[in-house]
Parts: sequence; C-alpha cells; structure tokens
Amino acid sequence: MEDTLTLPYSAAAAKAPIKRIPVAVLGATGSVGQRFVQLLDGHPWFKLHEVVASERSAGKPYGEAADWRLDTLMPNDASALPVKPLGVELQSRLVFSGLDSSVAGEAEDEYANRGSVVVSNSRNHRMDADVPLLIPEINADHVGIIEHQQKRRGGRGYIVTNPNCSTIGLTLAIAPIERLYGIEAIHVTTMQAISGAGYSGVASYAILDNVIPFISGEEPKIESEPRKILGRLENDGFIDAPFRISAQTNRVPTIDGHLMTISLSLRSRNFVNLDQVREAIDNFRGEPQHLHLPSAPRKPLHYVDGDDRPQPRLDRDRERGMSVSVGRLRPCPLLDLRMVALVHNTIRGAAGAAILNAELLEARGLL
Amino acid sequence: MEDTLTLPYSAAAAKAPIKRIPVAVLGATGSVGQRFVQLLDGHPWFKLHEVVASERSAGKPYGEAADWRLDTLMPNDASALPVKPLGVELQSRLVFSGLDSSVAGEAEDEYANRGSVVVSNSRNHRMDADVPLLIPEINADHVGIIEHQQKRRGGRGYIVTNPNCSTIGLTLAIAPIERLYGIEAIHVTTMQAISGAGYSGVASYAILDNVIPFISGEEPKIESEPRKILGRLENDGFIDAPFRISAQTNRVPTIDGHLMTISLSLRSRNFVNLDQVREAIDNFRGEPQHLHLPSAPRKPLHYVDGDDRPQPRLDRDRERGMSVSVGRLRPCPLLDLRMVALVHNTIRGAAGAAILNAELLEARGLL
Amino acid sequence: MEDTLTLPYSAAAAKAPIKRIPVAVLGATGSVGQRFVQLLDGHPWFKLHEVVASERSAGKPYGEAADWRLDTLMPNDASALPVKPLGVELQSRLVFSGLDSSVAGEAEDEYANRGSVVVSNSRNHRMDADVPLLIPEINADHVGIIEHQQKRRGGRGYIVTNPNCSTIGLTLAIAPIERLYGIEAIHVTTMQAISGAGYSGVASYAILDNVIPFISGEEPKIESEPRKILGRLENDGFIDAPFRISAQTNRVPTIDGHLMTISLSLRSRNFVNLDQVREAIDNFRGEPQHLHLPSAPRKPLHYVDGDDRPQPRLDRDRERGMSVSVGRLRPCPLLDLRMVALVHNTIRGAAGAAILNAELLEARGLL
Amino acid sequence: MEDTLTLPYSAAAAKAPIKRIPVAVLGATGSVGQRFVQLLDGHPWFKLHEVVASERSAGKPYGEAADWRLDTLMPNDASALPVKPLGVELQSRLVFSGLDSSVAGEAEDEYANRGSVVVSNSRNHRMDADVPLLIPEINADHVGIIEHQQKRRGGRGYIVTNPNCSTIGLTLAIAPIERLYGIEAIHVTTMQAISGAGYSGVASYAILDNVIPFISGEEPKIESEPRKILGRLENDGFIDAPFRISAQTNRVPTIDGHLMTISLSLRSRNFVNLDQVREAIDNFRGEPQHLHLPSAPRKPLHYVDGDDRPQPRLDRDRERGMSVSVGRLRPCPLLDLRMVALVHNTIRGAAGAAILNAELLEARGLL
Repeated sequence: MEDTLTLPYSAAAAKAPIKRIPVAVLGATGSVGQRFVQLLDGHPWFKLHEVVASERSAGKPYGEAADWRLDTLMPNDASALPVKPLGVELQSRLVFSGLDSSVAGEAEDEYANRGSVVVSNSRNHRMDADVPLLIPEINADHVGIIEHQQKRRGGRGYIVTNPNCSTIGLTLAIAPIERLYGIEAIHVTTMQAISGAGYSGVASYAILDNVIPFISGEEPKIESEPRKILGRLENDGFIDAPFRISAQTNRVPTIDGHLMTISLSLRSRNFVNLDQVREAIDNFRGEPQHLHLPSAPRKPLHYVDGDDRPQPRLDRDRERGMSVSVGRLRPCPLLDLRMVALVHNTIRGAAGAAILNAELLEARGLL
Repeated sequence: MEDTLTLPYSAAAAKAPIKRIPVAVLGATGSVGQRFVQLLDGHPWFKLHEVVASERSAGKPYGEAADWRLDTLMPNDASALPVKPLGVELQSRLVFSGLDSSVAGEAEDEYANRGSVVVSNSRNHRMDADVPLLIPEINADHVGIIEHQQKRRGGRGYIVTNPNCSTIGLTLAIAPIERLYGIEAIHVTTMQAISGAGYSGVASYAILDNVIPFISGEEPKIESEPRKILGRLENDGFIDAPFRISAQTNRVPTIDGHLMTISLSLRSRNFVNLDQVREAIDNFRGEPQHLHLPSAPRKPLHYVDGDDRPQPRLDRDRERGMSVSVGRLRPCPLLDLRMVALVHNTIRGAAGAAILNAELLEARGLL
Repeated sequence: MEDTLTLPYSAAAAKAPIKRIPVAVLGATGSVGQRFVQLLDGHPWFKLHEVVASERSAGKPYGEAADWRLDTLMPNDASALPVKPLGVELQSRLVFSGLDSSVAGEAEDEYANRGSVVVSNSRNHRMDADVPLLIPEINADHVGIIEHQQKRRGGRGYIVTNPNCSTIGLTLAIAPIERLYGIEAIHVTTMQAISGAGYSGVASYAILDNVIPFISGEEPKIESEPRKILGRLENDGFIDAPFRISAQTNRVPTIDGHLMTISLSLRSRNFVNLDQVREAIDNFRGEPQHLHLPSAPRKPLHYVDGDDRPQPRLDRDRERGMSVSVGRLRPCPLLDLRMVALVHNTIRGAAGAAILNAELLEARGLL
Repeated sequence: MEDTLTLPYSAAAAKAPIKRIPVAVLGATGSVGQRFVQLLDGHPWFKLHEVVASERSAGKPYGEAADWRLDTLMPNDASALPVKPLGVELQSRLVFSGLDSSVAGEAEDEYANRGSVVVSNSRNHRMDADVPLLIPEINADHVGIIEHQQKRRGGRGYIVTNPNCSTIGLTLAIAPIERLYGIEAIHVTTMQAISGAGYSGVASYAILDNVIPFISGEEPKIESEPRKILGRLENDGFIDAPFRISAQTNRVPTIDGHLMTISLSLRSRNFVNLDQVREAIDNFRGEPQHLHLPSAPRKPLHYVDGDDRPQPRLDRDRERGMSVSVGRLRPCPLLDLRMVALVHNTIRGAAGAAILNAELLEARGLL
C-alpha cells in the first residue's frame, strides 16, 4: 500500500503531552460523532473518555446506542463507554462537538460557559465575532481572539470551530494563490457527496441516476466563511478578506469527497504564472506541518497531474483524508484562473479538521 | 401519465408532406444511430429506408448488426433492413449522420458533394464557414447560408449540423436572456451523463462512486459553438456573438441528462428583473413552434419551480426529451444572474435535434 | 417508440361502464398512493374523486400535501383535490388502499365494514381466510370467497388484496409451469429495487456501492403467498398449493424492477421439455386478457431471448410495467429447471396490480 | 482505525527467507496485475523485480505503461521498472500471472517448462490433472501433485493456480460445514462486483440502475472448481468431492466484493446444530494460520452478526480483504441450511490468493 494512505499518526510529533488527554464527544452517535470516535482511536495525544448523545440513548453502552456505519469496525474501547445525556457535567475539559445544528448552538455555549474547551464542527458559532473559524494551515493566529471570548464568558472555557466541509476544500485550495497574487473574486460550483448530509440525509430514491442542484443552507456558508478565514485578526476583532464569492452547490451520487470547479480573478493579474501557482500549491505548508501535529498531513495540498484529476474515489483518501487535492489549473477565459479541487468531506472537511484544531490548541498551550 | 411526456408526434403539423420522405441513417448501429432509428419510428414525415454502418456490419439485417441498448424494443421495420456499407450510393436524398467524428468529416462531405442533404450530429463540420449550426428556435434564418454551400459543392447537396449536447442546453437556456438584455459573459459548469460518451464510452469502474472532472474536447466546443448560434448571418457569412464563455465539464454517474450551473453577466445590467427573465424563459417560442414541426416541443424551455430543480431523473423526459428545463434563477454575487439548466443529451442534445433540423428544412422547402 | 411501452389504455375494453366510477385512494401522499394517482389519470373506467391521507395532510390541496416524486408531472385534476383525513366518510364506494401496514389493518376493515370495496396493496389482510389474494391471470375464481366475507361483515363491503411485489413476479413466472408439470419446490433469490421500500426507505449511504442481503419481513411473504394464490378455492375456503419455497431477499442499487433467480423442482420431471416450457410462458394468458381489462397487458409474461436478459432497466417497462419478463430458462443441476424473472415492483407489483384487481371486480359485476 | 483493516504484513511470520525473493508479474499492466504490484509493495518475503506485459507496452517504464486505477498511489519502485515483453527470459524464478485467459494458457506453460514456478490467477490450467487448485486453508496438501507435474515437464518448473473469485468465497464459506456434516448439494446465487470484469469489462451504461443476470463462463467454473478443491489427492490424481452445485451469477453495481446467497443440503442432516455451525465457521483455521504466512488473515472466515450482514461496502476489507465474511445462517425450507457470504474479489478472490499460494510454496520449501 502507498505510504501516504496508511501512515499511522506521526511518532515524531513535537510537544506530545506526557499522558493522553481525556476528551468527550458530543453527538457521538451521529455521523460526524462516529468519525470522531473512529479518528480518536489510537490518537497519540487524546483519549476518548466520554460519549454524549440525546436523552434517548443515554445509559446504553455506546456499542449498542450507535448504529455504526463506517467501514472499519467500532473501536473496542468506545463500544463499552456508557452514553451520557447532553447537558450532563463532563469530566473531560476538551469537548468535541458533532452535534446537529438544531441543538449545537445552545449546548456548546453552555459547556463553554462552564469552562469546557469546545472544538466544534457545527455551524452555529462559526461566524460569532469572538469565535475563531480555523484552518490551522491558514489562520492559526486567529486563536488570538480566544482571550476575548474567555473574558466574555467570564472563565477559562471557549469555543473554536472548523468551517463547512466545502469551505475547507475551497479555502485551502486558494490560500496559496491569495498569498501570491491576492484574490478579487471566486466562482465555485460544488459536486458534493451524500455523506455530507449524514447517514439518512439523502434518500437513495432521490439521488440514484440523479443530481440535485441544491443543498439547503450550503451556498451562504461557502460565500461567507472563506472571507473570515482569510481575513485578519486585528486588535479586537476579525476583518474579512475583501473578495466576493459565488457558490453553486450540487449533490451527486458519490459516497465521500466533495469535488469543485473553481474560477478566480486576481488582484495582480498581470503577472500570473501557472507554473508558479502550481508550485505554490504543492509547496504550501502551515503551522500544523511546522509543529508536526499528529493529524497534520505532510502536505495540506497535493497538486495532481493528469487531465482528469482529482477524482473523488481515487484521490479523497490521500494522507488519511487530511489533504486537499488540486488539479487542472489553467487560464479562465472569463476570470483569470480555473482549477478543480477535492476534499474528503467527513475527514478533512469535518471530524479530522476539528481534531487538528484541538491539536493546535494543545501545541499552543491553550488547553 | 402527464401529457407532455407521452405526446405522440403532433397530428396538427402544418405542411405535412403528402407521402413520407425516405431517409437514410449513417452510423446506424452506434448509440446516436440507434436513437435516430428509435425516434424515426412512427415519424409522420420521414420513413427510415436505409441504414448504413461500417464494412464489418454490412450485409447483415439491422436487427442482427446492432447491439440494441435502448429501453424500448427495436422497431420491427428497422430490424429487417439490410445494413449498407458507408460510401455506398443511397436512394434517400435525406441522410441523418450519427457517424463517429473519426470518419464523419470525409463521409459527410462526400455524400453532400454527391447531392445528399446531410443532417449531421457530428462535430466535424459544425464550425465550417458555410455550414449552419442550427437550433431552430434560435437561428432558423441561418439556413440562408445553404445556397452558398451548394454553390461551393456545385450541386444541390449540403450539410447542416446541430450543436454539441451541452451547447444545446446552454444556448437554449440563455437565448431569451440574450434577446432581453444582451449577454456579455457566460460561466458554466456541466455535470454530464454517461450516455453522452456512447455505450462503451465510460467504464463503470471509472464512474461508480465518482465524478471525472474532464471530458475530452468538450470545453472548447461549449466555449465556441454558442457564439456562432447566437451570431448573425450577414451577406455571405456568420458573425459571432461577442460574449465570452468559460466552460468546466464533468462526467457524473447519471444515465441521461446533462445538468449545468450557469452564471451570466449582462450588457444592460441596470434593468434586470428576475420575474421578467423567468417569464421570458417560460414564454420563449421559435419557428418550430410557429410551424408546428412534428418534433417541436410545445415549449422549448420549461421554467421549473422548486429550489432543487431541475433534476436529471425527474425532468429530462419533459416533452419527449425535447424541452430544456431551467430553474433556480437568482442573482449572482459575482456576475449578474445565475441559474440551473438541464437537457436530455441524447434526444434534444443529439438525434432529436437533428430530426428537428430536418423538419425545418422540409417546412422551408429545402429538401 | 415501441408500442408496448406507450400503449394508452385499451379502447377496445369490453364491458366498459357507461360513466367513469368515482374512486378514493387511501394513503394518497405516500409512494404507492402516488402511483395510484398517476395510473388512474386517464383511466377509462375509474375517476379519481377523493384522496385520503393522515390527519397532518388533511385539508390541504393534494398538490401541496404530496411531495411528488414520480418522473411524470402530477395530474392537474389530482392536484386540486382536497386531502381528506383517514376515517372520514367517503363518497366513492371503490377505495384503493396504499396505506402503510402500521395503519392499514384497522382502517381497511373499518371501510369494508361500512360497505366500501377496498382494493388493497397492503399486506395486512392478504392471508385472511375470506380475503382473496389475487393475480387475475391466475386465480380470478378466488373472488368466489367474497360473498363469505360480505356475510361475515354483514353488508356489501369487502376487501381484496394483491400480493407482495416479489410474489407477483415469482408467481406469474411459475404459473404456466405449475399448470404444465406441477411444482414441488421453489428456490428463489431476489435482487430488489430501492423503490420497493418507499421514497425514504433506503438511505443512499446504505446502498450506494453496496448490496443489503436482508429486507425486513419479505422472505416469509414470498414463502407463503404463492401457495395461497396457486391454491384452490373449495366450498368455504382456500386450500394452499402443496409446494415448499425458500426465498432469500436482497436490496440492490436499482431504482425500479425486482429481478430474481428461480430454481424449480417439478412433480412430473420425466417429461420436461424446455421448448414447451418457453412456449407455455410466452403464450400464457388469463382472464384479464380474455376480458380485455384496460390495464391488462397483452401478454402477462414475455419470454426474453438473450443470455443476459431480462435486466431491470431494459425490461421493467414492458407493456407499461404490467408484464413480467422471463429469461435464461435452462436445466438446474440440483432441482429441475432454473430461470430469471423480472417484475416492475411499483406497477405490476403494487398499484397497477390493485387497479387490475378492481377492473376484474367491475367486469365480474362485483362493484 | 480497526486493527484488522490496517494490519501491515505480520512481522512474526515463521520461516521468513533470509533475503527477499525476486518475483516477476505477467500481465502487470492489467487489473489483476496492478493488484499484484500493489500487494507486493512492502511484502516481507517477495520483491517485485520484473514486470511483463504485451509487446505494445514493452520498453516503457511501468509508471508510463500502466493506466493505474487503484485507489492507492503506484509504488515508486514499481513505477521505474521497465516493462518486458511476454515470452522474454526472466531472471526471477517465481512468476505471478495475471494474464488474460486468451494468452495465459500457452504463456504459463512455456514459462513452467523453462523452469519457472508460475503462480497463476488465470483460469486456463485450473482443472489440469496435475495442477493444484489451491485455497491453502483447505487443501494445502494438494501441493503433493507438483512432483508429478515436474516430471511431466521434465524440470523444476510447475504451475499452481487459485480458484475463480466467487469459488474462493463459496468454498471457504462451506469448508467448515463440509468437515462437520458433509455436503450433498449446493445452491448459490451470486451478486458480483464490476471489478471482477477488469477495468473496462462492464460499461457504465450497462450497469447503472441495473443488474445483469449473466456473467460469461462464470457458472461452469463455480459448479466445478469447488469439487476439485474439496476433493482428495490420492496416489497420482485428484478425486472430486461428490456434491452437486447449481450456480446463478449476476453482475450488480458494486465496485468490489462478491456477495452470494448459499443453500446447502447435508449428508448427516439429522444432527444439524446452527450454533455448532456458526462456531465452526468462526473458528476455522488452516495451514496459512498455523504457518503464520504473511498474507494469511488471522481468521479466514468471520461470522458477522446482524440480520443484514455481510454487506460489500462494510465488510469486504476485513483483514486487508483476505477474510471471507459469513452471516444470516439459518435453516432452509428446501435444503438444510442457508447463509450469505462475501469475498473481496480482487484481493482474496484474485491477487491476494495467488500471493498466499506463493507464500505456502516458500514455507513448504517448494520454491
């Protein structure tokens, strides 16, 4: 097997904590929650200690409460953990949230106010003025806002978030170009996998031999989140990056992996050099790579050669699903550049992103 | 059943010829050829008289030579016809071509030079200076170039062509907007069905649980053909419409129906009124409707309400696959407008388009 | 288009009622209910008069209450009908039931006791001692039990049922062989389409790139219902046919059409002649054909040549989905014969079967 | 990740050769050949030394000649190897053959006659009287025939083969039952993945929303090979096991993993105890487990609980695709037992099986 797909967590990670930090997962029986449980198995820094779900599951062992749907077996340790009800007092300070957005807003606030560090994949607090929306390769410095948030909450607790699954793919793919030339406008059309909607989110009758040109609430997220992520943290708040975004989202019959076609217009369009862009993508590194965080891919972006790449089934699992693949970079007859990007929506685009965020917090001494 | 889906050929068609015109189909055993044979069955004006294929099939009855793959049975009349070899003298003057582009260029020229009217679905002659590239609802007047072509060939024969499958969907969808406001630029991303590549064109191993962000040769066609179609025929040649197009094409696991997201910038953007655009789309009519051509849809464009429409499986068969569906019309944060369009790629986008072209020629007295 | 796929309802139907009979559909917003509404549109004998659904939908126009998912448009007449709540007094005596089995048992009994003729697709009353389980081509004489049922209910009302979707395909396919040689044992493995589970029955995450070797409650139905259908009605009750059945059921990623491999052992195995069996299948006719019932296929069974047929996508729509296709008849190294059969599960296997049953009742003067 | 899915090759393997044995792969650019190349990467005993393909590819580096389609990257070492033409003299004595059956028969014979040990996945020599058809957990003793074959060839070369992909799943699943009770008859219906036909074997147009109830040449293989495998090697030849088999094969739209429903009648049917059968399946071990061969799964058979298991997408990768999963064991109303089995067709059912065979040969001192 190719190494980048089977790499276990890096043994060389700097600053590893002396003993593994106990963590809780909120919404542990759902699809994002199951990914948290899967990815935490064997994690060198974190140890799954508590699983939290709705009242209905509370009291049952996790192995019984969760209708496990991933293609690896449920970790034995997780299976025996008793499910705790949402709202209960937790022993772990570090809390991953895979809660549904219908309950995440209030529940995450409550835990943060009680002192928890809530690392959330939910959309509810992403755009809050004092909550960082993190892609650690891009805006690790946005953790600087945390002390403002702690002040507001009057304690040590706080929330950090990761972006929407498509936003992560898009923003990582354009970040090196933004640094190189500055971006003025982004036009993106996504072709998103069914797993993005959770296990029961898309009926097979709706999607077999079909494409659905609409995903509820998705376009506004993609049109706003990248501006916060690529924006600046100044004294006491975020200043959005000034580019405009048009996003058109589609659901296609793939299982995992959001593919997107991207066109960009640049600020300094006179000097665009495709080879330079390609190199900037492939050589892109950020703080997770410098800090050797355990979940950090060796390369956050892989430029894939070949006219017809990246493709979801062939490229989504690169570096355990933590790398974004980019290909087909070429001039756009309308804007300046165009290209194709792919992100594994439930790993780099969800649970894996949150775990990487938590690793950043630990490495920065914020836990 | 809903009427627009089961309408037989219209009995009310004006100018019906007194007896049915015999026609030949070139490349009759291929996927486009089979659609010709299917759609010609029961046609009120045309009667399938000759089937032409490669040397390998010649001499066999069509029922034996063709590996029939459509979901209706092979018409009995067609089944008994002997397959003739490409290049043979034909008895029918009207010739439909579903030839592969590797042989279509020369073969179609040869037949036209001998006096045939070649109505082709192949790409080879689409951009020729004296060959009309027709969407009869839009540019029926482009048949005016035919006399120039006949002069060049020194006889009564000529070639007319229909556009690429995606081009037809795109160009029909934007035509009413071009008339209303003028178009300056088009940004389109397609999600195309596997049938567009012929029966063996896409291996199942390549496309199941996957999207392929590349279709060989497709983007240049979509970026050029609409300019000819929406251009003007002046004294002795075509003048392209001046807009620019950026097309990004993808193959998705659907069987029939090319879906596309479209963004437009307009010339007179100050006066854009979405309701007016929606009405212009839904009320769009052209010469096939005025002439009551047998294959003409009642409405070439259907504006489909509902946030998540059109969808390939639900909307591709409207008006026997001859209508293009449009939905999700809304402002674009980057250009002016955006919307979603769908075309049945093997009917309106291929064989059905060619048959409609031939009907136009007959109604205009050009056969 | 091939005629058997586009045939409208037969104009030649004998005994057509003078004016169309008003009918109600119970469970009209569900997937079977929508098929009823679709198939009743343009029906020569029946006219959709009332639509009934759960309390939640009651009062709304049908066009608003139903989340229409079929690939033809909702009939205009149906769209305007107000949805009535289950249990309400109905004006139509003839009532089609597409109710979910969780409520069908009681509701159907209640309407039958009040005098309705309930033609049900639900499983609840199929095996009741005085309820006919009809495939009109096979056991039209089983309507003889109706008078016993009416006596029990103390009125003119009664229930008739059609079998499970897979049972219909299996039983039709073997009926001519049962008549010819007698059947001793049946071994069947099904590969069933997702539409059999209703629109939301199978999550896409569960079935894409997958097969599920289990369908809840399905195997016992297939192992019992054929014995009642091919059994005899004697004085006051049904006597099951004596063969044994082993059914193994699987869900596969097809949209419509249940495919099954069948092996049979025969009573008189010394005289098996494959040509004779093939002819018996292809020549099989029953009372719906003799009575020219409007929904009756010309041929209830089509023997399809070709090693690799029948196939769901290519053969499910024969005769508007009302015919069962059979192929690959050959000796079985273990039992005596084996073959492949295909039934359109939501037409011949559900709503279409019920409508054919109602036509039989009308033709027999039982309405 | 669950351990059984990510286990690297076992470090504890007994009898490891002192240095890695150089091997050649015939048909290295095809789909089975690519799996060989993938699975040999990092193999503790074998080292890919030569890649052989058709004249057309000869001379090119493998990385250029092979259209790599697996979802891991091509191993770097393989990429640089020059492709040699079929028939060329090889430096490696151990030769894996993934040749197409159109050329495998002659080419494998030629190499064996020249002294090579040919470990073949092709069907051509499977039923030869002096060629072992191996599933090492079942009939490792069949290697005893090799000396007869060497005599016939007049040298040290010989051929060993592994069974057809479906045969391997079926035969492993029933082997413990054969040992326990003796098997009299087998009825099997398969639902086979598209990868079984090679990358271009099944057109997407043929299989999307479809099932094809026929796989050319497959049923005779499944009906004969298990009898040789479960048969006995006596003095100078194989004696087939006496049971009869009926196989019905279907192609379904899954990517990897052949699922099958199996019914069995037993010799000693009076004493059937389902719990005992289940334990016999789960406890089944063979020589690869006793010898700790590097590719040997810890358990060749996994009994999977849950009504709806095994499923291709969820269970095919158990123990790196080398284990067969069994579930739904229950009585059969017709024969005695029935159950469901699943095999990863391109790993345990093809390249992985051949590599395990080669490991057995090395451990037995036969290389």
